[in-house]
Amino acid sequence: MELYRILDRIDAEQTNALNRLLEFLRIRSISTDPTHASDCQMAAEWLAEDLRSIGFKADVRPTSGHPMVVAHGPSNGKRYLFYGHYDVQPVDPIELWERDPFDPIVENQGREAVIRGRGASDDKGQLMTFVEACRAWKDETGELPMNISMLFEGEEESGSPSLVPFLKRNAEELSADLALICDTGLFDNRTPAIITMLRGLLGEEITVTGPDKDLHSGQFGGIAANPLRILSRVLADLHDDSGRVAIPGFYDGVEDVPDDIVLQWNSLGFSATDFLGKVGLSVPAGESNHTPLEMIWSRPTCEVNGIVGGYTGPGFKTVIPSRASAKVSFRLVGSQDPYKLRRSFRDFVRWRIPADCSVEFTEHGAGSASMFSTDHPLFGRARKAITPEWPNRAVYTGEGGSIPIAGHFSNILGMDSFLLGFGKVDDQIHSPNEKYDVDSFQRGARSWARIINELQSAHTPPGTDDEAGDSPA
Amino acid sequence: MELYRILDRIDAEQTNALNRLLEFLRIRSISTDPTHASDCQMAAEWLAEDLRSIGFKADVRPTSGHPMVVAHGPSNGKRYLFYGHYDVQPVDPIELWERDPFDPIVENQGREAVIRGRGASDDKGQLMTFVEACRAWKDETGELPMNISMLFEGEEESGSPSLVPFLKRNAEELSADLALICDTGLFDNRTPAIITMLRGLLGEEITVTGPDKDLHSGQFGGIAANPLRILSRVLADLHDDSGRVAIPGFYDGVEDVPDDIVLQWNSLGFSATDFLGKVGLSVPAGESNHTPLEMIWSRPTCEVNGIVGGYTGPGFKTVIPSRASAKVSFRLVGSQDPYKLRRSFRDFVRWRIPADCSVEFTEHGAGSASMFSTDHPLFGRARKAITPEWPNRAVYTGEGGSIPIAGHFSNILGMDSFLLGFGKVDDQIHSPNEKYDVDSFQRGARSWARIINELQSAHTPPGTDDEAGDSPA
Repeated sequence: MELYRILDRIDAEQTNALNRLLEFLRIRSISTDPTHASDCQMAAEWLAEDLRSIGFKADVRPTSGHPMVVAHGPSNGKRYLFYGHYDVQPVDPIELWERDPFDPIVENQGREAVIRGRGASDDKGQLMTFVEACRAWKDETGELPMNISMLFEGEEESGSPSLVPFLKRNAEELSADLALICDTGLFDNRTPAIITMLRGLLGEEITVTGPDKDLHSGQFGGIAANPLRILSRVLADLHDDSGRVAIPGFYDGVEDVPDDIVLQWNSLGFSATDFLGKVGLSVPAGESNHTPLEMIWSRPTCEVNGIVGGYTGPGFKTVIPSRASAKVSFRLVGSQDPYKLRRSFRDFVRWRIPADCSVEFTEHGAGSASMFSTDHPLFGRARKAITPEWPNRAVYTGEGGSIPIAGHFSNILGMDSFLLGFGKVDDQIHSPNEKYDVDSFQRGARSWARIINELQSAHTPPGTDDEAGDSPA
Repeated sequence: MELYRILDRIDAEQTNALNRLLEFLRIRSISTDPTHASDCQMAAEWLAEDLRSIGFKADVRPTSGHPMVVAHGPSNGKRYLFYGHYDVQPVDPIELWERDPFDPIVENQGREAVIRGRGASDDKGQLMTFVEACRAWKDETGELPMNISMLFEGEEESGSPSLVPFLKRNAEELSADLALICDTGLFDNRTPAIITMLRGLLGEEITVTGPDKDLHSGQFGGIAANPLRILSRVLADLHDDSGRVAIPGFYDGVEDVPDDIVLQWNSLGFSATDFLGKVGLSVPAGESNHTPLEMIWSRPTCEVNGIVGGYTGPGFKTVIPSRASAKVSFRLVGSQDPYKLRRSFRDFVRWRIPADCSVEFTEHGAGSASMFSTDHPLFGRARKAITPEWPNRAVYTGEGGSIPIAGHFSNILGMDSFLLGFGKVDDQIHSPNEKYDVDSFQRGARSWARIINELQSAHTPPGTDDEAGDSPA
């Protein structure tokens, strides 16, 4: 039985695979910071080179931003496009990291071995689970698995400005029967999650300008418009007292979750107290008439992600600053239209700016939400395929984080996405001391090997969804 | 007539006096930033040395913060204590300065010669007007003027933490019949202002903590408390829609301005449009039921001076930060009690913090407002003394900026303060490209010489307030 030889090979290769990942993690590919452009290029080249070493035909393709990596295996039968991203989040506040974020190591955290470093989980470690599965397949069988292509972008953490043009320009080359995406998390440490609902994302930056220079609050306080006060009012007005977003039309296109999904969610035993307790909180802060799982999976949100203005150094300065700015993001669900929302949001803000002040907007990406039908036969087959790898059977869930790529795949390439990832809730992605469990990395690669094996057996009829078989092919 | 020799001497010394000021301005005495502690020490020593060179007995006195400079001239008759501060504001945003803030020059700005550099106006240039008057007096007469003492502090721009203990410890040494303070501005370029109402100041910094680490807004958005949203709500709630401060009890102790003063103010021809137009604004932003001059002179205010939290770098980061903070200051009038307000403010904030979040407060100074009776005979005499120096006669005004020292002199040393200064509204104090007009510097020194001359003629009965005499002694 070939699958078991491949799984054994993944286990035997673990040390080498971890060393490859550490090498990848050392590349400082922070896409949002222009000073790291050459690091992004380097990460793309590292990845293409690694894929070529396995036997993929892999290129680094320039864009007007950071490059794409495209790789193709041998062609035959149904086609699958694996997607990941090689760019990472910024590292500030850097002083909270216990070590250099780009000097990764494998270390113990409690009883778990973890890979520590920026990108370990999001998304370098995750994307390498798929690459390692392909490598083991090739090493063991002498051939790559059939008809697998890969697309890796370098702007996922900075709004993906080059993605849509690239997909449109290369639609024929990239279209497939199904996309495979590894940029999500487990439901819990024992239970994988297949994501069938993804929130969209709209990112906006607003800068309010009042006086044309910084003023002394003694000379001008009380009479001059203060951009910090105006901005605070705008941001406070975004939510009403019940936690609902107050922008007119915001909830257009938001629908209630279907009853059968609500039933499945209610049976998951999710505890908001436990979930929030891990980050030092206890009270769900969202819309008061929705359950905690709805808040993170199926309800749209508006969050302020950054504010700055005035004097923020040590001590005190009685200044009325000329400008103040904030970054605001929206998670979208159902058929909420990000472009329509952008217009409503900007009107909402403009309406609150005094006549002698002004506001400027900067866009930081817009993607709508996605939903996939679990009726697709591959969903059931893949769900079954990974069952032996984990203590609990995989569940269908929503996902609060936005993976706009799934929407673009659907809209531009006409294909559904199968989202499976192995991140844990304490991975601290986007935060200091990001990590990825070695267990996630290892079981992740083994899970992909099982799924590839299932997809290759295209002529085998799919197992029924109720069968808890342990030998997938 | 001795006064005219002294005035001529001031004019003859102008170049030397400017060079002395430039030397003083080169010292980077930013009191709020601990890395500049040795610069503050250096500024104090420079000042003491300069005073000793004229003949004052001058010392640098250590405190638990930056040192005080105390100087005494010969003792006889009524005693006057001149106050100023040698510390300066921080210089950020540094990129908006057209030259190094600590590499001052004398240059032309339009038709005016100006001294450009941090502290040129606030307060190094202003305090040197008095020192130069004393120097000319000594140079011309061979003697210092009688019974003049000086006190210079180095923490005025950072809440004066050492001031009250120092005044209490040295109350006998520092007590005088009247304090002279040069840290204010002209009413307009042709009209000096003698300040009879000073707003007090309360400075508070608040830091809201939500989750115990930065979170991903996809994973946690909608369910986790966001400190940026909480902080915005707190700051927005500080004012109601009419511009009134909404903290309970805030207006306790605030009284309407007496009718005769209102009449004088209304006759000043103050144009809010002109005043705001100089800084790119046009609409008075304060309480809708008060006049613009009331907003800046006699009404209390609440201003946000700085906010920071979350990701504020280039690009975007979908983070829910663990903490967010703001600096808030209040200008106080009448008998508003800063300590009572501090308690009310903190309660107001705490009441708006969710149960699973927390808030910390840092104090940045508290001083009550001051009012001086213009019945004091010295006010009328000094007003008359400077009349020949300026196109228009001096007016009694309020002052929006806080000069807590006047309150401390009153409360601790039992003396009134006579506040006269020569700053102009476009001096950009606390802002980039601070300047002081050479005209302010020159007329300022000459005005102090006239006032000293008037004060020395203690036995001459004061001129009546209606007499527009041009020869003050």
